[in-house]
Amino acid sequence: MAVGLTSPDTIQAVPGIRLAAAHCGIKADPEKLDLVLIEIAQGSSCAAVFTRNRFCAAPVTVAREHISQQTPRFLIINSGNANAGTGEQGMTNARQTCVDVAKACDVDDIQVLPFSTGVIGAELEVTKIEAALPSLYAGLSQDNWLSAAEGIMTTDTLPKLCSRTVEVNGESITITGISKGSGMIKPDMATMLSYVTTDAVIEKNRLQQLLQDAVDQSFNNITIDGDTSTNDACVLVATGQSGVDVGNGSPEFEKTLNEVFVALAQAIVRDGEGATKFIEIEINGASSQSDAKELGYTIAHSPLVKTAFFASDPNWGRILAAIGRAPVEALDVVTIDLYLDDVCLLKNGLPDTNYSEGKGQAVMNQTEIKIRVELNQGVFSNTVWTTDLSYDYVKINAEYRS
Amino acid sequence: MAVGLTSPDTIQAVPGIRLAAAHCGIKADPEKLDLVLIEIAQGSSCAAVFTRNRFCAAPVTVAREHISQQTPRFLIINSGNANAGTGEQGMTNARQTCVDVAKACDVDDIQVLPFSTGVIGAELEVTKIEAALPSLYAGLSQDNWLSAAEGIMTTDTLPKLCSRTVEVNGESITITGISKGSGMIKPDMATMLSYVTTDAVIEKNRLQQLLQDAVDQSFNNITIDGDTSTNDACVLVATGQSGVDVGNGSPEFEKTLNEVFVALAQAIVRDGEGATKFIEIEINGASSQSDAKELGYTIAHSPLVKTAFFASDPNWGRILAAIGRAPVEALDVVTIDLYLDDVCLLKNGLPDTNYSEGKGQAVMNQTEIKIRVELNQGVFSNTVWTTDLSYDYVKINAEYRS
Repeated sequence: MAVGLTSPDTIQAVPGIRLAAAHCGIKADPEKLDLVLIEIAQGSSCAAVFTRNRFCAAPVTVAREHISQQTPRFLIINSGNANAGTGEQGMTNARQTCVDVAKACDVDDIQVLPFSTGVIGAELEVTKIEAALPSLYAGLSQDNWLSAAEGIMTTDTLPKLCSRTVEVNGESITITGISKGSGMIKPDMATMLSYVTTDAVIEKNRLQQLLQDAVDQSFNNITIDGDTSTNDACVLVATGQSGVDVGNGSPEFEKTLNEVFVALAQAIVRDGEGATKFIEIEINGASSQSDAKELGYTIAHSPLVKTAFFASDPNWGRILAAIGRAPVEALDVVTIDLYLDDVCLLKNGLPDTNYSEGKGQAVMNQTEIKIRVELNQGVFSNTVWTTDLSYDYVKINAEYRS
Repeated sequence: MAVGLTSPDTIQAVPGIRLAAAHCGIKADPEKLDLVLIEIAQGSSCAAVFTRNRFCAAPVTVAREHISQQTPRFLIINSGNANAGTGEQGMTNARQTCVDVAKACDVDDIQVLPFSTGVIGAELEVTKIEAALPSLYAGLSQDNWLSAAEGIMTTDTLPKLCSRTVEVNGESITITGISKGSGMIKPDMATMLSYVTTDAVIEKNRLQQLLQDAVDQSFNNITIDGDTSTNDACVLVATGQSGVDVGNGSPEFEKTLNEVFVALAQAIVRDGEGATKFIEIEINGASSQSDAKELGYTIAHSPLVKTAFFASDPNWGRILAAIGRAPVEALDVVTIDLYLDDVCLLKNGLPDTNYSEGKGQAVMNQTEIKIRVELNQGVFSNTVWTTDLSYDYVKINAEYRS
């Protein structure tokens, strides 16, 4: 069902990053990869952002602790079990996984960051992970990006990868990343899971800032169902092995980095649970950035708007109703213009006289649609990406554990 | 699909209130009533609350104007067309309807309140309403409550009525009301449409206060899809014809009035679009009333929680994730207890050791379920009522205009 999500282009290896994926038995289906190990070469910088859900998962707590103390050398990611809502045993299991990786890979346990994604509230079977580690370690390779992307999938229907090279001062830098996520998607500070790496030289504090900026423009602008996960995490690694330092600011590098983040974030929406449409919601002329964002999310989360898109029904009254109830201070309907792609629905808050059902229907028949709201109140803009709400969203989530 | 919504008990007429309903042609199906006229006897008090959606419908604007100037003598309600998002023509049509009613019923047009519910953005065919008025007026009767409840239905599957009598100082007072609504339900200051009448004596300002209190405890605590309608309105009429004055405060009367409002509000949830479960979400121990309400709504609006209930799946991790992302200041997970009916899921933020999947499954198999969250932070409580999210919700809303 993924909307406009094609097989990845050629994926460029990033010098200093090796990966391996395996089936260790957390997922029942033996065909499905469920464990990924990522090695980060010594001398790299690493930055991460995590979910702001207060019931954050045990591995999120442990990863936060570890990265605050040392630059990580290994990331261990399991799919099929979120190790969230698991209490003290969950913490013990997350720490044990790091100890097991440290032993198999000959590093300290605080140099390992653990990540989990899948069902909440079930105990993580750490012995399965431990047993798989030696062969995972032996299988590490620069070229395993695709299997790593597959190994972090849960309800995703396709792996999500993006790779770009960019010239800075005549020298080439590579940026390659993967992401996963399809439901429980409304990231807050980070997405479900995403790992982006580059061989540029960037020191840690600057890297953290670049990560935050990129996440704010990408993962923090997507939503599928408004449900912020307990396990969201996004990691950006700079191995430095290209020898090209972009720490003092490189517009080309930053633009390309943001493109990779936006592509990986949009890939999650395009593969949203049950998605049949990819919807971009652009808000312009808001009095504040937060107004622009809140209004976009109010439209994006409306079940009535989402089902109208699923039905390809130009029932724009539902968009109007969502705008009217948005938590935006001093919203003045008489200055609002509303567009569906280039078709004007409302001008100054009133139905556009040139609108016809046929024009609206033509846009709604597309699989990719832009809603544009011009508030004409201020200078702030924001864009949110989301999906429709289909029978399959209900089916996928009603049957998730069965 | 209505959950636990049975045929109404005996409906008591309210002296001073007469009603009539007809099919005037706004709905395509000639079997369906789509126009209701309610007469309010001279000497009555009347209070009303309306939607806070900024894109409020034309009849809402006109009704607000009229009730601010005179006590209404007639309410005219059409279903099938919301007369919202209709610009200047919509205002003209709403005013014309009042003029037509005034002429047919021999009152001033500002003594008429217009209400509309149905599709947004389509022009109201006022000539159909005008043509039906003489026979509607001739058919007014104290006993037409059931047909009036049917006449205001849109996607509702059952009419919603509630009637109670209460003894005050040895004298009997009647309270009878109707409501409608099934989707686009997250009332904000009022519900989709509800009309409650009593023969008690209550002057207007006190009546407005009683209405506001009752709405806050009933319609403002229900949600089906989080979408606040453009047409919400709730009217409370006191005809005074019992001669019993309760304006100075009568605990019995107020308790009974609130019961009627809660029953009518719950009836909307029980008949929620596609509902297979009736879910009560009780929040206790919050630091503020607004925290209690926000947390309840965050759980109630989570598509993941709603689909888990549809599937009767005790996937309580989704409730935990919703609590964790709720916009509640200083939420401290270590003090939270979580219950599904009497089954404890979390104690002090940790999985309860006595919990078993079998216990959770037994509760989830019920059609009426209570989620209880004990925050143990303060003294504020709130209860929200909602439904699950089923295939039929998507079907009803995808096919609404087709």
